[in-house]
Amino acid sequence: MTGRLAIIGLGPGNEAQVTPEASRAVEQAAFFYGYKPYVDRLELRHDQTRISSDNREELARAKEALAKAVEGHSVAVVSGGDPGVFAMAAAVCEAIESGPEAWKALDIEIVPGITAMLAVAARIGAPLGHDFCAISLSDNLKPWDLIELRLLAAAGAGFVVALYNPISKSRPWQLGRAFEALSAILPGTVPVVFGSAAGRPDERMEVCLLADAKPEMADMATCIIVGSTETRIIRRGEKPALVYTPRAATRPK
Amino acid sequence: MTGRLAIIGLGPGNEAQVTPEASRAVEQAAFFYGYKPYVDRLELRHDQTRISSDNREELARAKEALAKAVEGHSVAVVSGGDPGVFAMAAAVCEAIESGPEAWKALDIEIVPGITAMLAVAARIGAPLGHDFCAISLSDNLKPWDLIELRLLAAAGAGFVVALYNPISKSRPWQLGRAFEALSAILPGTVPVVFGSAAGRPDERMEVCLLADAKPEMADMATCIIVGSTETRIIRRGEKPALVYTPRAATRPK
Repeated sequence: MTGRLAIIGLGPGNEAQVTPEASRAVEQAAFFYGYKPYVDRLELRHDQTRISSDNREELARAKEALAKAVEGHSVAVVSGGDPGVFAMAAAVCEAIESGPEAWKALDIEIVPGITAMLAVAARIGAPLGHDFCAISLSDNLKPWDLIELRLLAAAGAGFVVALYNPISKSRPWQLGRAFEALSAILPGTVPVVFGSAAGRPDERMEVCLLADAKPEMADMATCIIVGSTETRIIRRGEKPALVYTPRAATRPK
Repeated sequence: MTGRLAIIGLGPGNEAQVTPEASRAVEQAAFFYGYKPYVDRLELRHDQTRISSDNREELARAKEALAKAVEGHSVAVVSGGDPGVFAMAAAVCEAIESGPEAWKALDIEIVPGITAMLAVAARIGAPLGHDFCAISLSDNLKPWDLIELRLLAAAGAGFVVALYNPISKSRPWQLGRAFEALSAILPGTVPVVFGSAAGRPDERMEVCLLADAKPEMADMATCIIVGSTETRIIRRGEKPALVYTPRAATRPK
């Protein structure tokens, strides 16, 4: 009997944004590993088991799931959003590479999901309308000066920048420093979108200018999209404003 | 009677990757505008109408759809992948901003989808496992030197780079130039993934090293992911290799 491991993206949290492929993968697995809020989202049968863990234990969780799968079980690791974007797919690959040979022989299926920046962008217009990048502000696994280098490189080359993992209790100052770094390159008039829980009842979308962006406007579930100098806001009276980046671009001055 | 416009992401082409939200939005619309291969994917009822156009007519298509919606109809604009990533959402916003006031009063709904780089990444491992960016190689709407600037900035700062619109009959040389630019910064040992039709029966996934990457390995439907110096290939004998970028990163030398 050979086990299998599915790494499943559950999307941003709205049931209607979970793909049929992801729902089917959930139906087929017996053991579910993940960060508690994601595992709690699943509606499971009596013969399916949840194994939740804290959000800074990705590698330990990946190893535990792989060990269960090599015993012959059908195992799922679940992530919010997409499992390949600052989530569990990389942690599982790391565990496979450094783990026992048997882990390499497992059937691995990775099921993509709607990642936060796409969900947030869709609620506000098309801020990712041309070249963009995604940067995690977590300095748990990389030095802060590398993050700052990337922010400066991205803004300098005219990319729109989506910021993941912007702030948490143990990382309170990073987002403020990121806004400072970006402000060294970009004018204060660049639009910034703060999006949380896109598509869920507790959705919160806020648009401001970079000069007015404050770390307090975000929490750990917020995805922030910082526009380029070409990003625009369309005011529409009663209707919510649209924020978008035109498809055409010119070289930054 | 007020019209409405939905901009719907149909995902990479596998029916199981179309979200329930997108399927519902398709059910509710009467007129469907889009690039022919995407519109052809829809299973429509007799009371629903397709209006297909060529793939370089985004702005004209957006205007036509908006004009139909202000007449009071329920209109959909469909994109493959996600509508906010090098697709129709930005074109519709451009049309709204420069169009008649009535277009600003429309109800606009944007439905996100699985974009190509997420689908390709999921089929091969976790190449987007840390900071990454997405760059369109089309120089129809931006100068080539800007694209080259972005490629160099991204590679220099250690981003993984996903390349959209890599090549076409009218843009035959851009991808080769992009590989040259990236090779000026990155070692030839960096893994490159060519992915087409991820999750479909005609799927083609190819992994090589940057030194061996050739433009002929791509067509206009390919999404290419160029790793960073930290991206790794796990060989697994009989099983397909996994390509991933570890979550931890150090400053590029």
